[in-house]
Amino acid sequence: MDLDDRKPVEEGKFAYEGLDRIMHEKARLGILTSLLTEPDGILFTDLKKLCSLTDGNLSRHLQALEKEGLVEVWKGFHKRRPQTLCRLSDEGRKRFVEYLDQLEQVLKDAAAQEKAARKKGKIKRSPIPEGWSPA
Amino acid sequence: MDLDDRKPVEEGKFAYEGLDRIMHEKARLGILTSLLTEPDGILFTDLKKLCSLTDGNLSRHLQALEKEGLVEVWKGFHKRRPQTLCRLSDEGRKRFVEYLDQLEQVLKDAAAQEKAARKKGKIKRSPIPEGWSPA
Repeated sequence: MDLDDRKPVEEGKFAYEGLDRIMHEKARLGILTSLLTEPDGILFTDLKKLCSLTDGNLSRHLQALEKEGLVEVWKGFHKRRPQTLCRLSDEGRKRFVEYLDQLEQVLKDAAAQEKAARKKGKIKRSPIPEGWSPA
Repeated sequence: MDLDDRKPVEEGKFAYEGLDRIMHEKARLGILTSLLTEPDGILFTDLKKLCSLTDGNLSRHLQALEKEGLVEVWKGFHKRRPQTLCRLSDEGRKRFVEYLDQLEQVLKDAAAQEKAARKKGKIKRSPIPEGWSPA
């Protein structure tokens, strides 16, 4: 890298403010993606399997998502057995789709970066300048 | 949702094990995407602006990424002023590209889900069964 010939940087270009932390958590991404398919909801017991989560973990994540108004959790009985139904709220669907748009932007940026780097034939890196040392 | 007519669920379908927690953190995603473009590295001062991070936050994230062997941090002087250069390691590039592949899978799944839900004409949700109540 030529330290005298740096491009001006675009402030906040890779800040990704739209990646809502509540939804960005890895397990929650799986939960929300599952729920996106079934507007009527998914039983807790099925959701657990789809996302490979324990009862405790799924409960905690659902609580966090419910507190934000993104999911609804309903309790009832089916064939005399207690059941829990989880589903996206209208607000949750809207916000998750917006989140996904931002995620798509990350992938577009990364793909563009990777392509630009290859084009410059620079995947092989220049040596570190003489006299510099690891931090 | 018809509780008597549920599809069998695919175990772990939305578990996304490949979303490495070290890289998935929102700010780190920005840092890694920035660094992907410049195999020779980016100065700390430029990276900070690109990602809209404070000195302290960027330092902490870089330390975490360095500890995992994903980035290299070099110190040196340029025109008598101390400078810090950050860049992806070969391992970091490889692992971040793998991570991005997994992220792309999330988006593909979500898009498929959304499409399937719309096809069923089900974005408008059925009422919650009689007798069920919020958890």
